[in-house]
Amino acid sequence: MAKVLIVGTIGLDTIETPFGKKTDIIGGSAVHAAVAASFYVQPAIVGVAGTDFPSEHLEFLRSRGIDTSGIKILPGETFRWSGYYEYDMNQAHTRDTRLNLYATFNPEIPEALRDADYVFLANLDPDLQLKVLAQLKKPKFVAMDTMDFWIKNKRDVLHQVIKKVDLVLMNDGEARQFMETPNIPLAADRLLKLGAKSVIIKKGEHGALFFSNGSHFSAPSYPQDQLRDPTGAGDSFAGGFIGYLAKNDDLSEQAMRRAIIVGSVMASFNVEDFSLNRMKQLKQKEIVERFGAFRRFTEFETIAAW
Amino acid sequence: MAKVLIVGTIGLDTIETPFGKKTDIIGGSAVHAAVAASFYVQPAIVGVAGTDFPSEHLEFLRSRGIDTSGIKILPGETFRWSGYYEYDMNQAHTRDTRLNLYATFNPEIPEALRDADYVFLANLDPDLQLKVLAQLKKPKFVAMDTMDFWIKNKRDVLHQVIKKVDLVLMNDGEARQFMETPNIPLAADRLLKLGAKSVIIKKGEHGALFFSNGSHFSAPSYPQDQLRDPTGAGDSFAGGFIGYLAKNDDLSEQAMRRAIIVGSVMASFNVEDFSLNRMKQLKQKEIVERFGAFRRFTEFETIAAW
Repeated sequence: MAKVLIVGTIGLDTIETPFGKKTDIIGGSAVHAAVAASFYVQPAIVGVAGTDFPSEHLEFLRSRGIDTSGIKILPGETFRWSGYYEYDMNQAHTRDTRLNLYATFNPEIPEALRDADYVFLANLDPDLQLKVLAQLKKPKFVAMDTMDFWIKNKRDVLHQVIKKVDLVLMNDGEARQFMETPNIPLAADRLLKLGAKSVIIKKGEHGALFFSNGSHFSAPSYPQDQLRDPTGAGDSFAGGFIGYLAKNDDLSEQAMRRAIIVGSVMASFNVEDFSLNRMKQLKQKEIVERFGAFRRFTEFETIAAW
Repeated sequence: MAKVLIVGTIGLDTIETPFGKKTDIIGGSAVHAAVAASFYVQPAIVGVAGTDFPSEHLEFLRSRGIDTSGIKILPGETFRWSGYYEYDMNQAHTRDTRLNLYATFNPEIPEALRDADYVFLANLDPDLQLKVLAQLKKPKFVAMDTMDFWIKNKRDVLHQVIKKVDLVLMNDGEARQFMETPNIPLAADRLLKLGAKSVIIKKGEHGALFFSNGSHFSAPSYPQDQLRDPTGAGDSFAGGFIGYLAKNDDLSEQAMRRAIIVGSVMASFNVEDFSLNRMKQLKQKEIVERFGAFRRFTEFETIAAW
């Protein structure tokens, strides 16, 4: 089986949505991505958590077949994010971000994980993303995510990372901001000109767009009326995407497209409840059914000249 | 050939976008819709214009095979809209709307047009939309559009119109506002519960969503990096949609889906230049090619359980 490595945050989230408030629930980009990926492969996480991180969470990750040997447990506090969503849940509002142990995090990839085939660099300081890349032996496919903070503060380093990876994931607002145009296809084109091999623009409720030189794919979102907590949707998308790619070990255009829909399916489940609650209940059968729904609500026949 | 009737505004627009400013160019909801429909059928327009409306515009409409017998030319001034688009061209900003002859417009459908099969009620006072409906003999399919102004000021009349038509077209912001939820699938569901037989939510750069009881279709938008003037996109969509439906005289689910893509194709051309400039150059071959592109960038294969 192809080896999958996910580097990102392990966190405790405090989240308020119109559906309730939850304190110190399991979260973090690497956690959401790895859990989504674990439906397809046995991914490894590299990250750090404090001694305050409940051991039951680590046990849960292992129960999903996730390799936790790259998670360091250090004296100190776990990364914490606190935020809320208003009536329009498309926009996360941050109340507080405490980097805690991530303030001094130096990602060391254990020897046994350096030959990973498929790698997801979740949102992290681009300098650290470069450090991870330097430790990899022969990855087949590396995807990266980022956020507005790094776009503002480390634009040049971000350029370096983008040139070294196979896929850049960004949400639409970040892509517009980074490439200084409101036009998404133009922003994607500029990212490709900057040296990105391929780009996925995540648009939340509006789906996701894939761009590479000479190819474009438009994925819809699931018509979700059970949205309870959008936190982790982007990371579930990325985790499902890379997990599916790795499971099939196929980087063809058609495999990428299926992987994008798989990512959309995983994200659509993740938002149905707080934290990983929905993912904990999720069955393979439900995934296949929802993938089928994506096909049914996107298919149309061709037309001829008249 | 199925008879198509389009009721809406005939106007002169003054538009400023980052690509330039144009004064008193031909526009209006009925005009944009009829020109898009004219690639498929010979639609008739019902509306009013003033003696200041250049006769060359009427000649152009007739050269497209559009039946202008329902356009009244009256003493007075033509409807005028003036607006601008900023850097982010997704949002139109109105500078001035002068109803002029539309302030007292009473849509009388000429006898020869009352037996129209396919009807598009473009954005108009819902009381007038009801008056049009009362004059129709045996329409097979009626679609309506509206805007935030009527949602605010004539909610109850709007409810009556919605119950009488086959399809409600609305943009996403209007649907959220009208149904008082930020969630688009939920808004569509509430419109169906209100008595709409089917709903299309137009999302501009994010495509369009179709909802009916038991069916959903998600159409992408064309990855347009040549956007110069978005004015009329929604009406071109509606015109292409109803023109294609009427041409095939087929209301099956598959025909509706193809019609939605045809509408998206027509809108994607319309925004490439000001007013009808792009539509005046448009060839059937280009339409078929772009429809093919929509298929290519949305197709994906199924997955099985693993």
